[in-house]
Amino acid sequence: VKAVQIHGPRDVRVADVDDPRPESETDAVVRVTSAGICGSDLHLYHGRIDIEPGFVIGHEFTGVVEEVGASVGRVQPGDRVVGAFQTACGTCWFCRRRWYHNCTSMRLFGFGMAAGNLSGAQAERVLVPNADLALLSIPDELKEAQALFVGDILTTAHQAVRNAAFRPGDTIVVIGCGPVGLLAQRCVLLQGAGVVYALDRDAARLRIAAEHGAIPLNIDEQSADDAILEATDYRGADAVIECVGAEAALNAAIQLVRRNGVVSVAGVYTDDISPFPYGDLWMKDVRLVGGLCNVLAFWEEAMALVTYGRLDPSFIVSHELPLAEAPNAYRLFDRREALKVVLHP
Amino acid sequence: VKAVQIHGPRDVRVADVDDPRPESETDAVVRVTSAGICGSDLHLYHGRIDIEPGFVIGHEFTGVVEEVGASVGRVQPGDRVVGAFQTACGTCWFCRRRWYHNCTSMRLFGFGMAAGNLSGAQAERVLVPNADLALLSIPDELKEAQALFVGDILTTAHQAVRNAAFRPGDTIVVIGCGPVGLLAQRCVLLQGAGVVYALDRDAARLRIAAEHGAIPLNIDEQSADDAILEATDYRGADAVIECVGAEAALNAAIQLVRRNGVVSVAGVYTDDISPFPYGDLWMKDVRLVGGLCNVLAFWEEAMALVTYGRLDPSFIVSHELPLAEAPNAYRLFDRREALKVVLHP
Amino acid sequence: VKAVQIHGPRDVRVADVDDPRPESETDAVVRVTSAGICGSDLHLYHGRIDIEPGFVIGHEFTGVVEEVGASVGRVQPGDRVVGAFQTACGTCWFCRRRWYHNCTSMRLFGFGMAAGNLSGAQAERVLVPNADLALLSIPDELKEAQALFVGDILTTAHQAVRNAAFRPGDTIVVIGCGPVGLLAQRCVLLQGAGVVYALDRDAARLRIAAEHGAIPLNIDEQSADDAILEATDYRGADAVIECVGAEAALNAAIQLVRRNGVVSVAGVYTDDISPFPYGDLWMKDVRLVGGLCNVLAFWEEAMALVTYGRLDPSFIVSHELPLAEAPNAYRLFDRREALKVVLHP
Amino acid sequence: VKAVQIHGPRDVRVADVDDPRPESETDAVVRVTSAGICGSDLHLYHGRIDIEPGFVIGHEFTGVVEEVGASVGRVQPGDRVVGAFQTACGTCWFCRRRWYHNCTSMRLFGFGMAAGNLSGAQAERVLVPNADLALLSIPDELKEAQALFVGDILTTAHQAVRNAAFRPGDTIVVIGCGPVGLLAQRCVLLQGAGVVYALDRDAARLRIAAEHGAIPLNIDEQSADDAILEATDYRGADAVIECVGAEAALNAAIQLVRRNGVVSVAGVYTDDISPFPYGDLWMKDVRLVGGLCNVLAFWEEAMALVTYGRLDPSFIVSHELPLAEAPNAYRLFDRREALKVVLHP
Repeated sequence: VKAVQIHGPRDVRVADVDDPRPESETDAVVRVTSAGICGSDLHLYHGRIDIEPGFVIGHEFTGVVEEVGASVGRVQPGDRVVGAFQTACGTCWFCRRRWYHNCTSMRLFGFGMAAGNLSGAQAERVLVPNADLALLSIPDELKEAQALFVGDILTTAHQAVRNAAFRPGDTIVVIGCGPVGLLAQRCVLLQGAGVVYALDRDAARLRIAAEHGAIPLNIDEQSADDAILEATDYRGADAVIECVGAEAALNAAIQLVRRNGVVSVAGVYTDDISPFPYGDLWMKDVRLVGGLCNVLAFWEEAMALVTYGRLDPSFIVSHELPLAEAPNAYRLFDRREALKVVLHP
Repeated sequence: VKAVQIHGPRDVRVADVDDPRPESETDAVVRVTSAGICGSDLHLYHGRIDIEPGFVIGHEFTGVVEEVGASVGRVQPGDRVVGAFQTACGTCWFCRRRWYHNCTSMRLFGFGMAAGNLSGAQAERVLVPNADLALLSIPDELKEAQALFVGDILTTAHQAVRNAAFRPGDTIVVIGCGPVGLLAQRCVLLQGAGVVYALDRDAARLRIAAEHGAIPLNIDEQSADDAILEATDYRGADAVIECVGAEAALNAAIQLVRRNGVVSVAGVYTDDISPFPYGDLWMKDVRLVGGLCNVLAFWEEAMALVTYGRLDPSFIVSHELPLAEAPNAYRLFDRREALKVVLHP
Repeated sequence: VKAVQIHGPRDVRVADVDDPRPESETDAVVRVTSAGICGSDLHLYHGRIDIEPGFVIGHEFTGVVEEVGASVGRVQPGDRVVGAFQTACGTCWFCRRRWYHNCTSMRLFGFGMAAGNLSGAQAERVLVPNADLALLSIPDELKEAQALFVGDILTTAHQAVRNAAFRPGDTIVVIGCGPVGLLAQRCVLLQGAGVVYALDRDAARLRIAAEHGAIPLNIDEQSADDAILEATDYRGADAVIECVGAEAALNAAIQLVRRNGVVSVAGVYTDDISPFPYGDLWMKDVRLVGGLCNVLAFWEEAMALVTYGRLDPSFIVSHELPLAEAPNAYRLFDRREALKVVLHP
Repeated sequence: VKAVQIHGPRDVRVADVDDPRPESETDAVVRVTSAGICGSDLHLYHGRIDIEPGFVIGHEFTGVVEEVGASVGRVQPGDRVVGAFQTACGTCWFCRRRWYHNCTSMRLFGFGMAAGNLSGAQAERVLVPNADLALLSIPDELKEAQALFVGDILTTAHQAVRNAAFRPGDTIVVIGCGPVGLLAQRCVLLQGAGVVYALDRDAARLRIAAEHGAIPLNIDEQSADDAILEATDYRGADAVIECVGAEAALNAAIQLVRRNGVVSVAGVYTDDISPFPYGDLWMKDVRLVGGLCNVLAFWEEAMALVTYGRLDPSFIVSHELPLAEAPNAYRLFDRREALKVVLHP
């Protein structure tokens, strides 16, 4: 089967790989029908995360179940499904508490040996271990592009907003208008905020944010600090959702939030930060939350919101391309010429 | 000044009463510009709650501050304000915990001696004790009809929905399409539910519910049980908001909610219920919450939602009449010919 | 194997029954070493709950695993275990949310066909379906009598106290000094209350309560209302834990709790209540919570407390008898001559 | 009146200052009977926080009310009281939400002009603005030494433990066995933890920790990491309470906590940290909370715990000295020869 392999920085190739088969009775094999390219794939693409050359990448996918192991019960061959970006054992200390993202044998699709050695989903077919946990049926009324992001970035945005635990009517800032940021802005409004400010320096993305109800702030053109202070009687934002994953963004979040507020971090951070304004954080009594999304615990919520029509995440898709054009797709996404690319095997 | 007095069942009159003056340094006097007639006023009107003949009634109002005592600081003469249906001492054990509705010396506007002997707001002028707590400024951008309900039924609906503590995407039932029910349906959607079902037997009110995003269920025409079970894969509603205040409504709520769900009661209950299906409640592991709204703790949230345009409660106003027509207004409201009447002194 | 069967009201017999064998790959068979008689067994004993004559009863047990199905992983033959009073499928809508007590195919040990047709644990051997969920290993340092109640009444008491969600320093009332009540009093102190009052009319049980840190109130000798009002500056208890399961007890709970407090019901209720003081409940703004314990979600907490020595529940055991003496044991327990009986096969 | 002034690093003097009088009708003047020296006073003593030479310091005190302004109602002359380390306006946006520690005109006793220009309590008499908020009556049954810390370090410890929001039975680490750390360890056990580990390098302080129920870990003698990992099946602590206020301590906290755990910081931090292991924090999905204690919202809880005898904080007092010996007292405390000094005017 065809699949997208990474061979080094900025070197992705489409190649033939072995056809996956269920290896245990809890496995399923899914014929992939759409596969997104995610911001976290760029960490691999840029070489910031090490991965074995030739590893098949990709962790956002929908498809049709083709085969299931004997004990798989929730999905059956023929079912239309979305996959989570991870799978979990379901029985360890963390899984028993429903913290699947902390599973002691957690496996990420398409992140190499260190992340559980699980071949990625930018492929014609993908093996899904513990399929009853890691696959979710797509309701008939939904298109694939509406369900695809439930397995990763929509639920990431949704949970980051949930973690902020703000009150109805609050003033919220979302840093970043990439795919996660734009979805977080929608979730902020859905969860009852009074108003959401969208920060970015990309005019086109800010325009999309505005179309979906956020107040755009172009940080190249105006001071976000001043704007948020003025909007909040000089208190600061009740909560800030950080959706970029860069030191400057986190610093801005700490700066923009009011005393006793929350900074909820959806952006990915793997390194030390120097200097980190912990004194400011402490003096302002800010709660700092964030980490990998617990997609398996929260995706039924996200899917319900999409199914009931409260939220349609497909607006973030800017490009749909055949799997064979993956190298080009990565280039477009890397250059920010594409907001979100979906590959079709 | 002119004011609406109750003299007995179905006997309200407009009469001249003494002009109120601040009696202590925390008092304010407000010139009333609009005053709602509330469902709970009908308890007085029907004689179900005892009250001294000639007592001035009414507890929903907006107006302009005319005089303030020396220590009043948050509002000043000339300010446009909305009043809460109650005032509180601000310092007792309950008030110190922000449970103002449980204040040991709580006073309701317009409910007679037993409720704190506080003259009502269906009047040209009203005395407001502890004005810094019991008055809230109306932002310039709002019309009075948008702010009026923040002092009572909007915040009642809002808090009842908050108390239900449902999850995003959940399926919620609101029993009743009176003013509180209609507002609760809006709040349910604002707070992130997947879908809200509106139950009533009044086709006109159900139509309004549908216009504002709820799925109407006419309980005279179909079985609510069947409809909700079908809509929830035979589990029942995740939460039910009871907005009627009648035994049958509470029974229906307990019937409609799923195991481990919540019944949140905004409707007013003062009597024993016989028989009460407590066994069903216990077997289903349902949480039952409800009681007088803590308006002074929650109204800033409601005002923020209105100010940011997330919610415009003025759609429930069906009639605006001069204060002098209060007797007629009560008749219209009592016969359900009016959804909501606002009096203008 | 020998087992305790119920044949009708007050008619329990020890008889030979078929030796259980694992029927599916998730089953285990446990050789029972101790089996408690629970207050809920008396519902069967009194004929208040219907059950097929000859059904083996009992749902509190410890033992040693003898056989396990192929996919059982958390326990192995030879392991010392405690069993839960129920088993669950682990995969239904409720189980996925960790609400195992609401499992759509929930099965109670020893409660007849209607409760899942699962043979009871007052027997030499017992079949345990979905053993990875329904069995918990007993740490080496614990005696059986310390672990036995983790599978039922200790966790029931623990969760009822958790559900009350009181604040450190609060004044709590526990109604009833039976086994659940006494354990709830311990849990109340462990979870940070200021003081706990124990209500009963049995002087001996009140003495045990006092020995374990509660303030005893004999309701035959003094007014609980007066005592609690005096102790709380005339507010009432911050929370009441109802551990009896009788209409009068629930009424007392509603009477004793303060405004904005919680009544958490561990006692079992299956019938309507007439009259039920719902008006009082609503006027006081009391939250009412209760239902079957979610033992599979909470028992690791209870086991940790016992393992670390924070709590030793074995003090409630008044009688240990051979399984063969089950008829006599039931008589003792029914007459309240025994506080808690443990049978040893 | 005599008072303790700071004149520069390590230069405190006892001098005569003006006798305070109530300046507004919400003020009280308290005759101080005991005044603690707090770890945060050492920030002034070391010159790490700037303060005007000659400023009277001290912010932990008990005393007797001597005079009150006209509108003070909760305390009266003759009342035995404890003071909070701060006072608040009671009416600003933050105070209305009960976040008194975030009051926009918050004033700290004894921290100079920048902190509200409020003269300290290491003095014979102290002025207390907004006395109804900032003073709490001491129940008759308590000694002063039991109530003194309710106004600062006990409530600081108590709230930091509350913020950790751990579950009953959890394994908790407290970093530091100074006064706050020792009190936090007591609070951890009171709030239902399974076990608490106390970290320090001072053998004498670790001994005190052990006497009060903690498991001592001398970090000079063994690896805390190894010990905690072994104690938790290699997961890490469920929560860590940081009670030191030093970069190394915060790093250790982040290292010791398990995935999805909480680090709650009672220690004071005012500066940037470089490098800060934010990548570790994010990858482990740890919540980081901390800041100045909201003493006015939480001290009634702490006082209730002391009053009911659940906790006696006076064990931390190592030295009681006359106010006149303040210079010596500061020396002893600075050199860690005293665990906690209480001055008596």
